[in-house]
Amino acid sequence: MTRLIDRRPGGSPPLSAPGAIESRRTARRFDPGRAIPDDLLARLIGLATLAPSPGNLQPWRFVVVRDPRNRRKLRGCTFGESRITEAPAVLIVLGYLHPHRTDLAGVVDRMLDLGAVDPDGAARLRATAARDWERGPDPSLRSTGPAMVAAALLMIAAGSLGVASAWIDGFDDEEVRRAFGVPDDHAVCGLLALGFADDAPPYPGRFGLDHVCFEEHFGRPWAPSE
Amino acid sequence: MTRLIDRRPGGSPPLSAPGAIESRRTARRFDPGRAIPDDLLARLIGLATLAPSPGNLQPWRFVVVRDPRNRRKLRGCTFGESRITEAPAVLIVLGYLHPHRTDLAGVVDRMLDLGAVDPDGAARLRATAARDWERGPDPSLRSTGPAMVAAALLMIAAGSLGVASAWIDGFDDEEVRRAFGVPDDHAVCGLLALGFADDAPPYPGRFGLDHVCFEEHFGRPWAPSE
Repeated sequence: MTRLIDRRPGGSPPLSAPGAIESRRTARRFDPGRAIPDDLLARLIGLATLAPSPGNLQPWRFVVVRDPRNRRKLRGCTFGESRITEAPAVLIVLGYLHPHRTDLAGVVDRMLDLGAVDPDGAARLRATAARDWERGPDPSLRSTGPAMVAAALLMIAAGSLGVASAWIDGFDDEEVRRAFGVPDDHAVCGLLALGFADDAPPYPGRFGLDHVCFEEHFGRPWAPSE
Repeated sequence: MTRLIDRRPGGSPPLSAPGAIESRRTARRFDPGRAIPDDLLARLIGLATLAPSPGNLQPWRFVVVRDPRNRRKLRGCTFGESRITEAPAVLIVLGYLHPHRTDLAGVVDRMLDLGAVDPDGAARLRATAARDWERGPDPSLRSTGPAMVAAALLMIAAGSLGVASAWIDGFDDEEVRRAFGVPDDHAVCGLLALGFADDAPPYPGRFGLDHVCFEEHFGRPWAPSE
């Protein structure tokens, strides 16, 4: 049941998830003359919002920056990042710090409507989700973690549909906030440039599992034959 | 060019990236009797390592916990999370804080070998990547951000191959560190339970784009027709 919008340029079906992950490269250049249609951009962000989050509180927010003047302004908040003005669309990815204060009731009502919780479960969520949100071991990750997961889903969905991406995390946080009105209760996670690639960057290599994987205990390498 | 391992149970090809994202649910129960073969688990972690990271420094680490005794121990570090002992494999997802000190030289050498940078680019990376790493606007995100992206890729790849997942972030950080030997220069991002699902949780709903998307400036809703 592939949606009509889920087509690569030329009309072929989307890549498989492993295929999209394997073929994704951080774009080094974008074709500045080729825009992303509204419905495709909305589809990609809609897929990003399917990321999981604690209590389904969905603490991600996206500022869609496409106006050329605003992209020049955003580029001025980075260290001269030319992909910001080349890419037809750049998302400022935000983590909202307080969804448990403003969004919990709406989320639980919806889950109840959809049958995703029963009335007891809804009552339990209403009673505990805010407390759980606040007691997280690393509070900064509560918002930015799910927002990064959403951004990751967006990158992979984009790649599967022929849209290139570049995650840009070199920027002046204060300048981005000032220029785009981002309030203090939102963390700026990064900038996601989206467009059509002008080249195909080569594979830059990765460490093997023996370097990044441990078996049962930190420091004991795990490296099965892949 | 689908790999032999990239098959769902029964032999069908992997789901498309949008399909895997749409069908993913946080597993509520796992079948404790059904293990994940080594080669499939290694494939999923290998795909996770294809996530992007600043300077290609790959600051993710995974502790693979499968031994039943260790899963009971890990469950003891959570608030009685039964999925830890039900799921045949649980990954402790870590963010390594100092890859720019220990891993930069190896990463750049490999990129040079693969033609992903030219000698000038390699010299530039050697000179600047460590400084760029340290000057990030939100230092905590430098490591945990890419590790969350890697975990997200793993979840989607898993879903595309019929493997269910549950991201668990309710745990006692200090207890996990003590029990599994995680040193101070690694952040514990979360626990990713993997296995085969015992049920198909219903869709819990998501906010529309009018709630999470802004156009050009924070506070100005963007909601095109999808």
